[in-house]
Amino acid sequence: MDEVTFGPRNEAAIADAVARLSVMFGDRFSRSAAVREQHGHTTTRLPTQAPDGVVFALSTADVVATVRVCAELKVPVIAFGTGTSLEGHVNAPLGGISIDLSRMNAVLRVAPDDLDCTVQAGVTRKRLNEYLRDTGLFFPVDPGADASIGGMASTRASGTNAVRYGTMKDLVLGLTVVTATGEVIHTGSRAKKSAAGYDLTRLFVGAEGTLGIITEITLKLFGIPQEIAGGVCPFNSVKAAADAVIATIQSGIPVARIELLDADQVAACNAYSKLALKDVPTLFVEFHGTKASVAEQVADFAAIVDEFGGGPFRWSANPEERTRLWQARHDAYWAVIAARPGLKVTATDVCVPISQLADCIVATQEDIATSDLFAPIVGHVGDGNFHVQVMCDPANAEQTARVDAFVERLNWRALDMGGTCTGEHGVGQGKMKYMQREHGAALALMRSIKAAFDPDGIMNPGKIIPPA
Amino acid sequence: MDEVTFGPRNEAAIADAVARLSVMFGDRFSRSAAVREQHGHTTTRLPTQAPDGVVFALSTADVVATVRVCAELKVPVIAFGTGTSLEGHVNAPLGGISIDLSRMNAVLRVAPDDLDCTVQAGVTRKRLNEYLRDTGLFFPVDPGADASIGGMASTRASGTNAVRYGTMKDLVLGLTVVTATGEVIHTGSRAKKSAAGYDLTRLFVGAEGTLGIITEITLKLFGIPQEIAGGVCPFNSVKAAADAVIATIQSGIPVARIELLDADQVAACNAYSKLALKDVPTLFVEFHGTKASVAEQVADFAAIVDEFGGGPFRWSANPEERTRLWQARHDAYWAVIAARPGLKVTATDVCVPISQLADCIVATQEDIATSDLFAPIVGHVGDGNFHVQVMCDPANAEQTARVDAFVERLNWRALDMGGTCTGEHGVGQGKMKYMQREHGAALALMRSIKAAFDPDGIMNPGKIIPPA
Repeated sequence: MDEVTFGPRNEAAIADAVARLSVMFGDRFSRSAAVREQHGHTTTRLPTQAPDGVVFALSTADVVATVRVCAELKVPVIAFGTGTSLEGHVNAPLGGISIDLSRMNAVLRVAPDDLDCTVQAGVTRKRLNEYLRDTGLFFPVDPGADASIGGMASTRASGTNAVRYGTMKDLVLGLTVVTATGEVIHTGSRAKKSAAGYDLTRLFVGAEGTLGIITEITLKLFGIPQEIAGGVCPFNSVKAAADAVIATIQSGIPVARIELLDADQVAACNAYSKLALKDVPTLFVEFHGTKASVAEQVADFAAIVDEFGGGPFRWSANPEERTRLWQARHDAYWAVIAARPGLKVTATDVCVPISQLADCIVATQEDIATSDLFAPIVGHVGDGNFHVQVMCDPANAEQTARVDAFVERLNWRALDMGGTCTGEHGVGQGKMKYMQREHGAALALMRSIKAAFDPDGIMNPGKIIPPA
Repeated sequence: MDEVTFGPRNEAAIADAVARLSVMFGDRFSRSAAVREQHGHTTTRLPTQAPDGVVFALSTADVVATVRVCAELKVPVIAFGTGTSLEGHVNAPLGGISIDLSRMNAVLRVAPDDLDCTVQAGVTRKRLNEYLRDTGLFFPVDPGADASIGGMASTRASGTNAVRYGTMKDLVLGLTVVTATGEVIHTGSRAKKSAAGYDLTRLFVGAEGTLGIITEITLKLFGIPQEIAGGVCPFNSVKAAADAVIATIQSGIPVARIELLDADQVAACNAYSKLALKDVPTLFVEFHGTKASVAEQVADFAAIVDEFGGGPFRWSANPEERTRLWQARHDAYWAVIAARPGLKVTATDVCVPISQLADCIVATQEDIATSDLFAPIVGHVGDGNFHVQVMCDPANAEQTARVDAFVERLNWRALDMGGTCTGEHGVGQGKMKYMQREHGAALALMRSIKAAFDPDGIMNPGKIIPPA
């Protein structure tokens, strides 16, 4: 893979930082090879670049103390949540210090009256929803992994519910952030909207720790719907399924989840999650609302399925059956890995205007066939967003080159269709090469923000912004 | 009123800019006193500060040409849409050039399949919705005035539908912006979501022309609901009405509009818009959806009204009746002005967490009574956002001082309750004094963005960011 390199490691400064942090944090600072490797990138074929040491932070004050040492010495600082990002976000290409926020896992405040809460960055989405269960509220953003809320905010995560409830961009009300100088700032407020100045909240959301480190997040919550019905619906072709999705969105059905799995993905999920679906393109759907509204949505959706020759549409309001189905959907990544033992995964996502969705997926499937690759497709198609998970043998240079060329064509295809090179995974290292094409002259403004917030370039260097 | 002053006018540079723009634009550049006055602030008690000349732009290229002249000469540039802002956004405290975008009023593209469109900045919200009528789509953001989409994006406007459909922050997919150096950039994409880099779109939305001038906007659109039902519901007290709103939001009813008018505002609207409502605190509501869903929402809301002793709740699905009601709501500003002929208006808005709404309004009403002011309250209470329109005689210094002190207490009250000093009007000149209190250390980051994007400070100077 193309790799962008950034300046040399500053060995003396790193050694100094390691020595000082070791004294400051004692047991909560680790230099062990295993811990350092685990805090580099571990999820896809991108090479692991381990940090030089890991601070296990317990508080915003710990983050401040760590950043101040690193700022003084100009040593890179990389925030780490659960390590589930897919584009090398937590790698340390210049070395430096990883700040592991997973022990900052307190839910600080829940206000059922205001439908909001404040959490520390290390709280995971599942933990938050377990905590909320008794309040009748839930937080809908659900990337496949049980990611941390801080990581989800930093990568502008979304997931299966985004088509109805929005992404992290929409659901973060405010943040506590440690800046590159080790200052603590608060963005946003608990008001549902504001026109009071520049939207710093939205600037830190999706900045992948390159502008500051998010330590606390105030989130919008939602009432658990009175009625939830889910279902699966097979189609004869990916095109027919994608067209049914387009029609569903256009008709204004407030679908809560609408996910497309292609035949290879269905087969992998059948094997991994013990489902018994037909190995054909399949939509997983879910509807939320009152009893009457859900019944209406289901009926309207069934009519659309019929129009596109899909079916039978089997739905259920039974919670166990639903949970099993969506667990399988969330395990799609692991199902593909299990389908090709010993191979390495390249996980990529793109997002296009929904009118382009069917064409984009069909062209991508043709490309997969021509390229002779195993690359199941699954996606949040209600948003025009889909994932391709390409498997390959890293020892096979010819195959690896075919994978890289395919991924590049996929990203260019999405950009040519008016889309974006990533709907939800983020840029990290893997998508930097598409930034210039996607943003053009606007990239210079991104660069100027980075320079203004982090003049020494210590915050997660080598991510998002390619070298000028 | 406190006024923040910014450096002296650069007379020589301004004269030079005026001379050059006059040659470049001929008839489309005006120096007439009337035109200049009309391009300063005209809507509230804030003093008018007219620009030195007005360019009537027809294209992004015209904006580029104007900004390049002003950038070279370091002369202020102020974007102007319809001049309906309420906090002095279009004033020229240092003089300079106003760029009137109202002739850039083309709808460039509508894609019903993608539920989006692209418009020039001067298109007004009413013109857009007239244009869209045959497509079955609409754009929901509706500040009281028939503002331009560019102005609405720049002030992060919302309005009566925001409780259901979101604000400009949520509904702008992408922008064309002319930067402070006169370069054209494009932000966002037509994909519904993206995780590809810093969110420049959200940074320009709400920046009030201080970071660049928005010339084109890509917007999300919505299908016109199958069924719309509206109604009015009187209450015995503002507290009971606000509590009913809180209960409505908390119960998850997807209300499309829920507006509170206090007794003074109802009386003013009765007189101005020939309504025959009882002069008591009243909610205006509207529900959107399928026939079945709207019927369910109306029934659920009626039960809440009952619980809080309100009623009778009179509702109607008749379009003429609804239109008349909402026209009266949008004319609330003019109704208050008409109720006190000869007086000047101070229009302010704040937004608080919804749990604080009833307390904040009640305390504000007590303050109005104690201060012996005429100050009707109306607001988008489903978002915790409300407006107070205070009338006073500018020749009466004692009364004017009472108004200013009241407005200041109101803003501090909202901030003390975890809210914001403006939910939708924006900062302009009028709210700059609250920025430090609201944002604390984060204000320094806003200042650094301003310095990075506009190092010479020519883009709408004297707005948003108070002097350091």
